[in-house]
Amino acid sequence: MKRVKLIFLLVIIYSSFSSSAQTWVWFPGDYENWLGNQMNNRRTERGIDVPVQWKLDNHEPLMIFTKEVNLEKPEEIEVYAEGEYVIRAGWRLRVNGNKNRPTRITLPVGKNVIEIKVVNYATVPAIYVKGNTIKTDTSWMASPLENQRITVNMKHPDSPSGYYMNAGSGNLNDPNVKPSKFKLPTTPMGYVELKEMAGGKLYDFGKETFGFVKFHNLIGTGKIKLQYGETAEEALDSEHCETFRTYDVPKGKADYIVAHSNSLRYVFIVAENAQFDDVSLLYEYSPVEYRASFKCNDDELNKIWEVGRYTLQLTTREVFIDGIKRDRWAWSGDALQSYLMNYYMFFDKETTKRTMYTLRGNDPVICHLNNILDYSFYWFIGVYDYYLYTGDKHFLRQIYPKMESLMDFILERRNERGLVEGLKGDWVYIDWFDHDVDITGEVSFEQIVFCKSLETMATCADILGIDREAEKYEKLVNDVKSKLGDFWDEEKHAIVFNRKNGENSEQITKHANMFAVFYDYVSEKQKEQIKNAVILNPKIPAISTPYMRFYELEAMCSLGEQDYVLNEMKDYWGGMLKLGATSFWEKYNPEQTGLEHYTMYGRPYGKSLCHAWGASPVYLLGKYFVGVKPTKPGYEEFEIRPVLGGLEWFESRVPTPNGNIDVYAAKKEIRVTATEGEGYIIFNSTSLPKVNIGKIEKIGEHEFKVKIIGDGLEVKIEYETI
Amino acid sequence: MKRVKLIFLLVIIYSSFSSSAQTWVWFPGDYENWLGNQMNNRRTERGIDVPVQWKLDNHEPLMIFTKEVNLEKPEEIEVYAEGEYVIRAGWRLRVNGNKNRPTRITLPVGKNVIEIKVVNYATVPAIYVKGNTIKTDTSWMASPLENQRITVNMKHPDSPSGYYMNAGSGNLNDPNVKPSKFKLPTTPMGYVELKEMAGGKLYDFGKETFGFVKFHNLIGTGKIKLQYGETAEEALDSEHCETFRTYDVPKGKADYIVAHSNSLRYVFIVAENAQFDDVSLLYEYSPVEYRASFKCNDDELNKIWEVGRYTLQLTTREVFIDGIKRDRWAWSGDALQSYLMNYYMFFDKETTKRTMYTLRGNDPVICHLNNILDYSFYWFIGVYDYYLYTGDKHFLRQIYPKMESLMDFILERRNERGLVEGLKGDWVYIDWFDHDVDITGEVSFEQIVFCKSLETMATCADILGIDREAEKYEKLVNDVKSKLGDFWDEEKHAIVFNRKNGENSEQITKHANMFAVFYDYVSEKQKEQIKNAVILNPKIPAISTPYMRFYELEAMCSLGEQDYVLNEMKDYWGGMLKLGATSFWEKYNPEQTGLEHYTMYGRPYGKSLCHAWGASPVYLLGKYFVGVKPTKPGYEEFEIRPVLGGLEWFESRVPTPNGNIDVYAAKKEIRVTATEGEGYIIFNSTSLPKVNIGKIEKIGEHEFKVKIIGDGLEVKIEYETI
Repeated sequence: MKRVKLIFLLVIIYSSFSSSAQTWVWFPGDYENWLGNQMNNRRTERGIDVPVQWKLDNHEPLMIFTKEVNLEKPEEIEVYAEGEYVIRAGWRLRVNGNKNRPTRITLPVGKNVIEIKVVNYATVPAIYVKGNTIKTDTSWMASPLENQRITVNMKHPDSPSGYYMNAGSGNLNDPNVKPSKFKLPTTPMGYVELKEMAGGKLYDFGKETFGFVKFHNLIGTGKIKLQYGETAEEALDSEHCETFRTYDVPKGKADYIVAHSNSLRYVFIVAENAQFDDVSLLYEYSPVEYRASFKCNDDELNKIWEVGRYTLQLTTREVFIDGIKRDRWAWSGDALQSYLMNYYMFFDKETTKRTMYTLRGNDPVICHLNNILDYSFYWFIGVYDYYLYTGDKHFLRQIYPKMESLMDFILERRNERGLVEGLKGDWVYIDWFDHDVDITGEVSFEQIVFCKSLETMATCADILGIDREAEKYEKLVNDVKSKLGDFWDEEKHAIVFNRKNGENSEQITKHANMFAVFYDYVSEKQKEQIKNAVILNPKIPAISTPYMRFYELEAMCSLGEQDYVLNEMKDYWGGMLKLGATSFWEKYNPEQTGLEHYTMYGRPYGKSLCHAWGASPVYLLGKYFVGVKPTKPGYEEFEIRPVLGGLEWFESRVPTPNGNIDVYAAKKEIRVTATEGEGYIIFNSTSLPKVNIGKIEKIGEHEFKVKIIGDGLEVKIEYETI
Repeated sequence: MKRVKLIFLLVIIYSSFSSSAQTWVWFPGDYENWLGNQMNNRRTERGIDVPVQWKLDNHEPLMIFTKEVNLEKPEEIEVYAEGEYVIRAGWRLRVNGNKNRPTRITLPVGKNVIEIKVVNYATVPAIYVKGNTIKTDTSWMASPLENQRITVNMKHPDSPSGYYMNAGSGNLNDPNVKPSKFKLPTTPMGYVELKEMAGGKLYDFGKETFGFVKFHNLIGTGKIKLQYGETAEEALDSEHCETFRTYDVPKGKADYIVAHSNSLRYVFIVAENAQFDDVSLLYEYSPVEYRASFKCNDDELNKIWEVGRYTLQLTTREVFIDGIKRDRWAWSGDALQSYLMNYYMFFDKETTKRTMYTLRGNDPVICHLNNILDYSFYWFIGVYDYYLYTGDKHFLRQIYPKMESLMDFILERRNERGLVEGLKGDWVYIDWFDHDVDITGEVSFEQIVFCKSLETMATCADILGIDREAEKYEKLVNDVKSKLGDFWDEEKHAIVFNRKNGENSEQITKHANMFAVFYDYVSEKQKEQIKNAVILNPKIPAISTPYMRFYELEAMCSLGEQDYVLNEMKDYWGGMLKLGATSFWEKYNPEQTGLEHYTMYGRPYGKSLCHAWGASPVYLLGKYFVGVKPTKPGYEEFEIRPVLGGLEWFESRVPTPNGNIDVYAAKKEIRVTATEGEGYIIFNSTSLPKVNIGKIEKIGEHEFKVKIIGDGLEVKIEYETI
């Protein structure tokens, strides 16, 4: 048994350095933040550029990359870099870097400290070193300061410096493609229908998609105008379509690919003094792996899962964005859900890390993430989720200084009770409310996510062995937790919305209540009370965004209400499918009809029809029906609690860092195969179950547990579902 | 009288906004820092690029410029910008900016809030708006955040935000020259002698200078190598010359200007497969105004003053740098002296502000300026000096947030006694010492400049009306001041060098002692004791850099020892002139001979022969002989204490923000004309003096005072010098 564990440990260590191959390296976070914001800043609204509405943080313009090597024989290395650079090895060897071709230098036998200093304002300083034994990877160090000039962070003297770190990387392994030139891949795609209309041609690509429109044999002296639409109505509506762009026809007959990629299902093309033979699309996509699968006896649910995957695929770009039509921005609240869905779908670590770095930016912290108080808190939670699912301690160590400085900003802004409030400049968002809400004072929801963030700090400091910091945050957690009780209304069986001047308000919404349930911040008795008095209570305002429905359904799942959730999914998400959705929407109100469905923000096509937060069923199914989740970081240990929730059977694969967990569940049979880690299958049975490998352990009335080893062997359980 | 004062006040206000004309604007400090570091990073050493050895801070890549206007009729404006930009005015008017030509938009009648959002990573976001009534100036606001998202700095809640400020500007008034394209002007200059040598041609430009070498009718297929020298020996020494560069000959016969400007008096040109008709120089210079003058009966002193001016001229570039051959960097310690010399020479505000911004960079502060503990302190002192000489309160307000964040960094790093020590990463420099010095523990010199910096914070907070901050710093000043006494050695009549574990060390150097004298941190009795026991004591190690000789002579001047100082100047600076210096050196040791003079840092031509800190006589003469200094900010009030110090007579002009003070002094006559402010002429006389305007006031034995109004009328005093 011990042996097996050791192997897994090695796998995990290897995995956390999996980008350690010969690769481009940079200062951790800087490139990710830069790249993510290149995406963010590509947003347009009716032809007008819309850069982000929060602070953009810049990168370190001067970076020193160092690596100590001990050579048995002289070695020639090739150095590629983005920026002006100088290479130094020892006192005598100093070379100016070539900008347009690799610089070759030969290092002498013995100990060499290679130092490559890069200056680059326009894009992020980065290097790629290719030698026989010497190659850039995350074992190189990166710092904006010379080694002997690195000062201690006096606020956190026990913590590692955020300014002398292992270099960052991200699977950019081609020395001839500089990181700033990174582009998502594209693949050609044809339309499914063309309608010649008065004034132009309407192309239907058959489903929500994203890419560059290509004109075949374009010729003329005029302009081409592209009106994009998620619906035909939008594409045809020159007054109101959300995105359009006009291009001058280039000289000479040629195939012409427009410079900007866009979301679309339809494109209406108006040509003025221009002809072309045909149009196609270069579908632009993130090359994520489809590592998960889900199939069950309910075809509608299968379709929901597939459309969820496609929605997540489309909104997974350089970073996880909210929606592909609008805003095309990384939002911390939206991203947290994308991360979770991703762990049950692509298990793509790079996009997750890039998004977290993009959201966090650089120091100093002078405002909340996306300007939103709650969005700062989600970010901490996302970092811990990442660690829990991937076991990537290396990343945790790298990002920890940024966690500290964001938390410092938050702690400085507490009120005299040590709780958070929306201060000048803070946007207290929580959710779109259809009714008026007073968001001033101590808002219970914010305290809950604040408390969770402090827990995250304590846990992460502990994992990294920074004991004094862990203790400090633990104390803060206890303090905030002790005050959460203040918000409980014993009569209403609910957490009230906010407190002002020491008095609870009368407002109640579901948000704080459902978070308290799945964060386990209330007693089991309170959970039941919340379920009935709040979540299922029609007098409490219904939640109107898929964003918060995500958590509402998660709360219900965590209360064992999968049957309820399954019905809701079929009803709500199935409802969108019935309306012809090919991806899930930003908002869906079954009460609306016709074109009403596309309106939002007071605009006829304001709503995004492909919004990441619309895809939550893929997460809920993976975590609460298939029932797979890590109980130790990186699936070193995991739990599988299959719940049919009204289904006859399902069959699903959930990805783990370096393997998979396959689960088949039906009313009399559960079959599980795992290929790494070890875990427990937990299930209910009215009869005494049987298992082919290992042994059955009874852990409650009708509740049983079977241990499973990630050795690729199928564990088969015969049981009787309740 | 009141009336006169009012006029001056208006002049001062106008002056502090003097760059408010229609001009390029940016986020204050960002462009200055960027530009200064473009200069810094042009340093080379024997053909190898040497970027700065400290942290480079980047600019805000997204900037929002706003201005509210109230129009009586519609107005068309032209918007120029550096970066991608979007213009918004109200909800309806939104326009993408053109990158290559100005964007024209027409604003409607009534109240308009113009918002121009610029994104630029490569260079600093900047705009220039040209309209009939609407024009960019420092009344525009600049912020990296939308107005409603600007948070309070919780550490300094009473202080103005450093992230919503009046736009910065710097006399860049041509819309067609983007700030990033700013270049110092050049003017053609010929050599004075050409020597054809084996292997190449040696050109002598007659004096230390700086510029781009130009080849006339260059043709060939090979290379030209330029070996620069401050001496002929250096230019001819291919093995050891400090700067050289090789260029490929471009195709076709043409005049060719090399891409890099360099310091030189001599250039040795080695042509390989290349011919040219002639060579000249494009002298590259800062177009500062020669506002001061000095002439006296001593020709050597006149020459010293002129060579000092030329030294300062050459080292005044985009920013004030140390020396033009090496390091070509802005160093805070060197810059402080350049600022002071500048007030008595060019009174160039822009270069001073640019240098301060360059040195300070952006938040977060993670290391000392130039990595040097003392250099952080000099920076505060320089800011106050700037305010004192210019009266530019607008700048003080703009830079104050950067003062706070640097001081926060310093305060966090104090020891348990509240004093500063060199911690990990800090370079405790003070001076180049020829003997071993233990710089650990509480170093007295550092406490003195720390105390002065705290005083500066208190004063500036007070000036800006930030009372709680002023109080806080005042308390800190008193605390540190009360501990300065610990360093006094009653037996040795000196401030000891440092304290460790509560015990004074035996080390004594002049540094802390002379600073304590002119900062008035010791009693009059102690000052006399220091003069004799330290400054004039041959057993105390002599100061070996003109850098610290600056302060040594300043201390002696402040003790009324002008005679001594005059002799030292003639001896030391006169000594360099006798060796043929055309600018003053980084270091000069009269004991050395021949080529020894050019050695430093273990390299035969390592010494810089044009170093700003070598020019201190221009400051000492202006402040302590001509005796002019402001006693209220911006020369609103000033003092003139002419001291002949052994001279027969002198005649000098000292610039003030918007005027001049002309002083002639001889043994029996003083004549002063001032054109702004009001002040006092203070002088000693053995007889009762006479004055043509105003009246004589006796203020001590043989000491008299005459009030002068800056009305341009000459005040003539007849007296008898002692």
